[in-house]
Amino acid sequence: MPEENQLLEAFKQTQYQLAGHGRRNVQVLKDAFAAIDGQEASDIYGKGEIIEDFEAQMAAYLGKEDAVFFPSGTMAQQIALRIWCDRKGLRKVAYHPLCHLEIHEEDGLKVLHQIEPLLLAEKDRLIDLDDVRNIREELSCLLLELPQREIGGQLPDYQTLEDISKHCRERGIKLHLDGARLFEVLPYYRRSAAEICQLFDSVYVSFYKGIGGIAGAILAGDSDFIKEAVVWKRRHGGDLISLYPYIISARHYFGDRIGKMQKYYEEAKELAVRFQQCYAVSTLPEVPVSNMFHVQIEFPKGVVEDVLAAIYLDTDIGFTGNLREVSDTRCSFEVSLGDAYERIPGDRLDKAFEMLCAKLLALV
Amino acid sequence: MPEENQLLEAFKQTQYQLAGHGRRNVQVLKDAFAAIDGQEASDIYGKGEIIEDFEAQMAAYLGKEDAVFFPSGTMAQQIALRIWCDRKGLRKVAYHPLCHLEIHEEDGLKVLHQIEPLLLAEKDRLIDLDDVRNIREELSCLLLELPQREIGGQLPDYQTLEDISKHCRERGIKLHLDGARLFEVLPYYRRSAAEICQLFDSVYVSFYKGIGGIAGAILAGDSDFIKEAVVWKRRHGGDLISLYPYIISARHYFGDRIGKMQKYYEEAKELAVRFQQCYAVSTLPEVPVSNMFHVQIEFPKGVVEDVLAAIYLDTDIGFTGNLREVSDTRCSFEVSLGDAYERIPGDRLDKAFEMLCAKLLALV
Repeated sequence: MPEENQLLEAFKQTQYQLAGHGRRNVQVLKDAFAAIDGQEASDIYGKGEIIEDFEAQMAAYLGKEDAVFFPSGTMAQQIALRIWCDRKGLRKVAYHPLCHLEIHEEDGLKVLHQIEPLLLAEKDRLIDLDDVRNIREELSCLLLELPQREIGGQLPDYQTLEDISKHCRERGIKLHLDGARLFEVLPYYRRSAAEICQLFDSVYVSFYKGIGGIAGAILAGDSDFIKEAVVWKRRHGGDLISLYPYIISARHYFGDRIGKMQKYYEEAKELAVRFQQCYAVSTLPEVPVSNMFHVQIEFPKGVVEDVLAAIYLDTDIGFTGNLREVSDTRCSFEVSLGDAYERIPGDRLDKAFEMLCAKLLALV
Repeated sequence: MPEENQLLEAFKQTQYQLAGHGRRNVQVLKDAFAAIDGQEASDIYGKGEIIEDFEAQMAAYLGKEDAVFFPSGTMAQQIALRIWCDRKGLRKVAYHPLCHLEIHEEDGLKVLHQIEPLLLAEKDRLIDLDDVRNIREELSCLLLELPQREIGGQLPDYQTLEDISKHCRERGIKLHLDGARLFEVLPYYRRSAAEICQLFDSVYVSFYKGIGGIAGAILAGDSDFIKEAVVWKRRHGGDLISLYPYIISARHYFGDRIGKMQKYYEEAKELAVRFQQCYAVSTLPEVPVSNMFHVQIEFPKGVVEDVLAAIYLDTDIGFTGNLREVSDTRCSFEVSLGDAYERIPGDRLDKAFEMLCAKLLALV
């Protein structure tokens, strides 16, 4: 078994990677700024053309009245939920047990905002209409994440979304969209972002996942909501004097990649099939509904690390830097397709999958 | 009287400015990144050489065990006070009535952290030892701002700092330094940052004031304190996947300008004398103790706007973009010296001050 991080080190040495847009290095910023006139004025505390124009562009794209740029989605989403809770005078929301706010934010929502979440559905499945219908408590807001990242990027069908939205409106529950990967699911739904967002009262989108920017997020909603969000942004320490390093990169890569989401989605489906052809390998979901899926392998993590490290060394293709141990006999990893995939020479990729299938079969 | 913002518009047209380092435009970022290798790896959620090396550099410079980079001082300082309050189990702190947390943060400290501040001293003077001695309540933390920006950047003498520090330690009150402009006061105290910081339990410094970076802050203290601060940084939404646009610019301009603080200080004293030579003009403090001071003019704001706009047009030198109305017959503005001052041709500057003195005298 390789030492801790040996897989990551082997992964970092590879020339090609299955997932992502390429290395997260300073060139990402340099490329975004190459064509920018140095005389362009900085944004200053939320004011100025750079930030206001991008907020307007995103509000229009998402079909909302207004939008505000945030340094992070963590900040944007806590604030969205807080505003809806304050409106109703009730600090109670609902979301999936594997919601980002529940598992990745050190309980900021609870500690900073004293908001109590109700966990809807089991960890390994999506929230459905019955889950929402069966809520007996009063709630200020329900958060839905599209796609549900931690379970492979699964999606409810559009009818379910419409039904949940209708139900929430009838019951006076605000519906918030964690759209960290919203751009990536538009090809599956065959809908515009604005069509989907009209089902929600507030929407957060991210610029460093499918878009591949440096960091940053947009929160969109009606004008009154956004006015309140701007005040909370200052309270959280997010109203930086200048956010343009993130805004200009977000704008640049949004322009580059928003039109490629269909391609990433098709490639994800193609790649999932390649994985499924190997013994003991499956994907979640079986047929991807976005650019992402989880690869599940029915062997112990340490054994699979050896297999992958050998493939990386031989083919110069990295599948992942981190395997997650699901159980003693099972591990998994996430794949999110981006620009990196098309750079892999076809014969190398064929060889990598031949090696994977052969090596896993040899383990039996 | 010029219309609202006419002074600001005239100011923006000027080629030279008294204060600052030059225009806040995208070139600030481009210059900082010009010599950076694009292959340098991004920081990822607080890890990586770019962020860890700079944190270590700043911890050493400030004489503290550890440091963490924050996107903003607003976030860093609320968190520092929260940690000290949690340690004592008492959400009560003290600071100056014109403290940044009191007047510029939409009450984030109170609303997000339920911390109650005691306001020490009157608005128009510094906190002194007696103010601290006379506190009858239990407190978790006292915040001192060096220099006290909103009253012209005034400073207590070093003995007073030592006495306050000693008193707080005896009483079990943590002492936090709002060092947004700490670098700028080192020449006056003739002490290293580390010497001053050893009087304090925690320290925040900023990189876009005297240093002239894009944004960002460092919070420094002992290792346990910083470990807690890192958790709170995530809760606040400040643990961005990548902060390197701010870190690299902070590092770049720190290197450029930390050695120029003495020069800015000397120039501030020189410039203050020039202002004082005009009728009805005074400075606060009379003799600057850092790179900054306030210019106070005993005429109505609208009248002075006309005077300044005429000077800008004639000399191409901008004094300020914003006058603050102190009363019906008095206005003021802030000057913070930086690299811009040395670029002004001497004869033009002479002419600007001749015009200022003549025009104000003509108003009598």
